[in-house]
Amino acid sequence: MGGDNSPDKTIEGVKIFLNKYKSLDDFELKLYGDKNKIYEKLVQYKVSNKFINIIHTKSVVADNETPLTAIKNSKNTSMWNCIKSQIEGESDISLSAGNTGVLLVVSRMILKMIDKVSKPALAGLWPNKKGMNVVLDLGANIECNDRNLIDFAEMGSALYKSLFPKDQPIVALLNVGSEEIKGTEILKIAYKKLRELSGENNFNFNGYIEGTRIMSGDSNVIVTDGFTGNIALKTAEGTAKFITDNLKKSLQKNLFSKISILFSYFSLKSFKEKLDPRKYNGAIFLGLNGPVVKSHGGTDAVGFFYSIDLCYKIVKGNLMQQIKNNLDHLNENQE
Amino acid sequence: MGGDNSPDKTIEGVKIFLNKYKSLDDFELKLYGDKNKIYEKLVQYKVSNKFINIIHTKSVVADNETPLTAIKNSKNTSMWNCIKSQIEGESDISLSAGNTGVLLVVSRMILKMIDKVSKPALAGLWPNKKGMNVVLDLGANIECNDRNLIDFAEMGSALYKSLFPKDQPIVALLNVGSEEIKGTEILKIAYKKLRELSGENNFNFNGYIEGTRIMSGDSNVIVTDGFTGNIALKTAEGTAKFITDNLKKSLQKNLFSKISILFSYFSLKSFKEKLDPRKYNGAIFLGLNGPVVKSHGGTDAVGFFYSIDLCYKIVKGNLMQQIKNNLDHLNENQE
Repeated sequence: MGGDNSPDKTIEGVKIFLNKYKSLDDFELKLYGDKNKIYEKLVQYKVSNKFINIIHTKSVVADNETPLTAIKNSKNTSMWNCIKSQIEGESDISLSAGNTGVLLVVSRMILKMIDKVSKPALAGLWPNKKGMNVVLDLGANIECNDRNLIDFAEMGSALYKSLFPKDQPIVALLNVGSEEIKGTEILKIAYKKLRELSGENNFNFNGYIEGTRIMSGDSNVIVTDGFTGNIALKTAEGTAKFITDNLKKSLQKNLFSKISILFSYFSLKSFKEKLDPRKYNGAIFLGLNGPVVKSHGGTDAVGFFYSIDLCYKIVKGNLMQQIKNNLDHLNENQE
Repeated sequence: MGGDNSPDKTIEGVKIFLNKYKSLDDFELKLYGDKNKIYEKLVQYKVSNKFINIIHTKSVVADNETPLTAIKNSKNTSMWNCIKSQIEGESDISLSAGNTGVLLVVSRMILKMIDKVSKPALAGLWPNKKGMNVVLDLGANIECNDRNLIDFAEMGSALYKSLFPKDQPIVALLNVGSEEIKGTEILKIAYKKLRELSGENNFNFNGYIEGTRIMSGDSNVIVTDGFTGNIALKTAEGTAKFITDNLKKSLQKNLFSKISILFSYFSLKSFKEKLDPRKYNGAIFLGLNGPVVKSHGGTDAVGFFYSIDLCYKIVKGNLMQQIKNNLDHLNENQE
């Protein structure tokens, strides 16, 4: 029910997903919310209800709800019941386009933190030259110590392995320089520990990287505190928007350049497709006893489809088992 | 003498500068370094020596010099003598494309910090939708307290006023959200203090901004700690490179798109010009008893020209007086 233009975009996103996975039958989509509204939209968008299970809830989390008031007000909302179904063994993963702050609080209340994880983190996908990065933390924790950063490296690598089982995770710590002497004391301690943990069965540690190298493809699991990660992600978004806006403006300047748009149409189309932010829609909340994915509230049906697809891949890739393996490896090395 | 391909690029940069300011005679350029090499290049690039004064120095700061060893080894190098000329009243500003770490240490040793400034900062120019931002700190201090951030706001506003005398500086604090409750304790204290300092004779304080809004043009003096500022700047650089590389690749994909390059040539030219990083070349070291500008070591003659131009504007805009005014205003408000 959450996010702009819901449940239209969620139901249309479901439709795109079902079309993509026509040949598969190893999933079920439980839709939590107002059953009349959902049913109406399923009919409107002509969605087959073969793999769909509607669970009616009377209330939803309001947009203006804060994490503080949510504890009292969110019980039995669609968000609450959705996440609750995970501990009741009714589902493997939750997806919401609703209020982020409330989602983090409610997820943590219901699912509880994994033993021995120091802090949960919000991870996101970010394109790089060779494919895709996992970047974390994107803002769940504005202050982090070395222990948190190491947990993020282990959980981020687990996420990477579950999404890209053929590739080896390569971890890098985001810093103001690549030399060993650079950065805060917290980073220096994390650096040493990650070098010890680096290995074939876990992840390769690639040292420090600067912001310029996030998208170079040399590393694919980028670890940082939630303050820096949030600023980096949003600065990249702002920069991308600034550049594409300027590109559009330049191409529309005069008749000559207007003709060029026609000629550029196909080449710019592939450019736009590669950079389409909807493809990276979905932040993954890691460190709880069950995965929760947050879709951007402002995305459309295609963006929401990519979030459902991400959820499917996370479950098929056994994220929770991968996290357990990595944390076991970490604990063995800390004993 | 510093940076890649020097003194070729420095001398060619000087030539571009002299051509631009042909009608003016209110400046002198002192060139510190090997006089034979400099003279040879002045002849090679046919640079008139009317406004040029060569000051011979036997040694230069090596690329591999660290800030720690520089204190011993940098005396009487071109960099040292150049900055020294400021306290001797021989020059108003120093510009170098050499070793950044050494430049910061040597500048601080020779020029000393301004009384009552808590920490010096490295400020840079960054394009926004309406014109230009001043962003600081870009990496001089990886850890900052609220006092430092307030000093950065005052000094950054002074720099903005000296460069863009017709505009009012609008200060924003970089944060993970725009609501007052977001961010670290340090940011919250700085926020309160900046709101008190905000006013017509100083700067307007625009509150917190997220990374997405750095380039929106709503604010033009972006204040943050050196760790975050460095990551944000370099992430923006990396994102810009990723996007333009992808654009180039898409445009060169097939014959059809190759033809489109011809048609797009003029529109993409204006796009490229607007985003040319050489236009923003030059980081300004603020908080010392004299301004020092660091050109990117890897820039070319055009980039170096923009740094000389920046120096000229800083001196004409009376940066040191603007900083003094702002600090006086700050001290009055703290009494």
